[in-house]
Amino acid sequence: MSTSSSASPSRAATLTDVARLAGVSIATASKAINGRAQVRAETRQRVLEAAEQLSFAPNALAKSLLQGRTGTVGLLTSDLEGRFSIPVLMGAEDAFGAGRVSVFLCDARGDAIREQHHIRALLSRRVDGLIVVGSRTDPRPPLEGDIPVPVVYAYAPSEDPRDISITADNVEAGRLAIDHLLSCGRTRIAHVSGDVTYKAAKDRARGAADALADAGLELVGGRTFFGSWSEGWGRGAARMVVERHPDVDAFFCGSDQIARGVLDALRELGRDVPTDVSVIGFDNWAVLTTNARPQLTSIDMNLEQVGRVAAKRLFAAIEGTASSGIEELPCRVVTRESTVPNG
Amino acid sequence: MSTSSSASPSRAATLTDVARLAGVSIATASKAINGRAQVRAETRQRVLEAAEQLSFAPNALAKSLLQGRTGTVGLLTSDLEGRFSIPVLMGAEDAFGAGRVSVFLCDARGDAIREQHHIRALLSRRVDGLIVVGSRTDPRPPLEGDIPVPVVYAYAPSEDPRDISITADNVEAGRLAIDHLLSCGRTRIAHVSGDVTYKAAKDRARGAADALADAGLELVGGRTFFGSWSEGWGRGAARMVVERHPDVDAFFCGSDQIARGVLDALRELGRDVPTDVSVIGFDNWAVLTTNARPQLTSIDMNLEQVGRVAAKRLFAAIEGTASSGIEELPCRVVTRESTVPNG
Repeated sequence: MSTSSSASPSRAATLTDVARLAGVSIATASKAINGRAQVRAETRQRVLEAAEQLSFAPNALAKSLLQGRTGTVGLLTSDLEGRFSIPVLMGAEDAFGAGRVSVFLCDARGDAIREQHHIRALLSRRVDGLIVVGSRTDPRPPLEGDIPVPVVYAYAPSEDPRDISITADNVEAGRLAIDHLLSCGRTRIAHVSGDVTYKAAKDRARGAADALADAGLELVGGRTFFGSWSEGWGRGAARMVVERHPDVDAFFCGSDQIARGVLDALRELGRDVPTDVSVIGFDNWAVLTTNARPQLTSIDMNLEQVGRVAAKRLFAAIEGTASSGIEELPCRVVTRESTVPNG
Repeated sequence: MSTSSSASPSRAATLTDVARLAGVSIATASKAINGRAQVRAETRQRVLEAAEQLSFAPNALAKSLLQGRTGTVGLLTSDLEGRFSIPVLMGAEDAFGAGRVSVFLCDARGDAIREQHHIRALLSRRVDGLIVVGSRTDPRPPLEGDIPVPVVYAYAPSEDPRDISITADNVEAGRLAIDHLLSCGRTRIAHVSGDVTYKAAKDRARGAADALADAGLELVGGRTFFGSWSEGWGRGAARMVVERHPDVDAFFCGSDQIARGVLDALRELGRDVPTDVSVIGFDNWAVLTTNARPQLTSIDMNLEQVGRVAAKRLFAAIEGTASSGIEELPCRVVTRESTVPNG
């Protein structure tokens, strides 16, 4: 705390004091301190300077923790199967510190009315902030209405660049996959992916094409084979690619489900993995990767890290230090026997 | 409401009135009305009669809803992957009625300290009740400490028979699977299952053996082949069974993962499914059943129904009508091409 505070030392400064000194309404002061995006940068700066001058301690969560109460954060998901939400939830809890902050998950099922209902319920239970998790990386509309606590968007970023969004860098992930296959000595690489309407599918394909171009190569067939996120598509696409391009020596698959289908088709075509053909999947979903024959190399989107960073940004916003824009976190390759022969 | 109430009609009866009339402490009256198990049946009866006589309306949740506020229920899970929790969560929300009650999910990760922490956080946020979901059907210790709201255990029942527990009837599910295979004309049926330390694995095996005994048959090999919940075990077990018992004509698998392994091994052994051999899985996990070749018949544990019934029992307990004991709900067969030839 500043010792040069101009506020009376006999009583803690209130939000009203801060608003008066900054020459703004209490609502605006609150928004500025809570890091809400609706406040202009210069106004926010003025409010934060006033808060600093008055030694105003706005951090409700920190106050709760100091008083021995626990903080709570709402996690709003639209991811029915929980595949993306659960790791984000766990990462966020770990970042907040077990035993200090509880994360309450609500499932909106991709339904706007249900989302509104859950937000009201969470706010009425005095959560300190909200993390909104989506099931795909396409930007989503920001939460409607006036949300009095900070919000961070995870995996699915907000369409509003003033919001705080944390997602995975799928373009770089496409590069990573191709670079790994090039390291394994592969040059005739096919890319079989899912639904082309997904931004993630397009991003991964772009990164893959860029990495190949940098190596003076191009995708087998000259294009990405987009289809659906299913084993059936993986099987069909693999048969088609091998028939048209018998010299194919690697498959970069847009999901582990597609990769499982590609592996099955290659086995039935008599192509040995990884001796003849290398296969890399995407998602690093243990149920699929560790049960595959051979076990499947895959790209991991580090979703727990997405959750941890979302929690940190939310914590910072609660403390009045809001960032903004989309932050894309790196993915990583998890190598198994489908690309690298078992030594 | 009773019109013969002896309370003054000019003011609503309070819990203190009820306690006085029943001759118990306010704490005991509260526990009796909230359906907590620590109260003796006769005491509870006396309190409920007093409440009836005074037209006492204790339902905090109903009051909230009447006043236009939403109710909230905490769902405490220890199921990391969310496979069992998410359908239970959705069923509970549907039973409560969308837009009226929000369910907050907290993940305890099977850790008692984390569980305590989440319970404190949920109670401090004034949830109206708790649903505790486990990842296996083995009974678990009841929640520790004095929980001031009703609790219902879902999927994993409480060890305390005074608690309310809702789970799936895995013995009957084993019967259902065998009855379906018998209906398909199969008589040489093998049962390949997972970890024998799971009560669910033992229950399904018992139901299967009972159904076969009723038909004058027994399992191929005279026993259940227990192993692990993995595709790898399914592949190995199928090869072993076919080698030792070439006349096997059906596999009942303890999970869809095991069934996927069995299907792959049978294909590689040249056994046609379902012409030569029928295969039925367990869990009806769409990712595995719909991508299998052929698509996999499976037992569905109706987990959404478990969630719906848990919600109803919790609602009843909040209203003062608590049940107790373990309620086992029926499972169902979902037929696909792995048991029934595609017409």
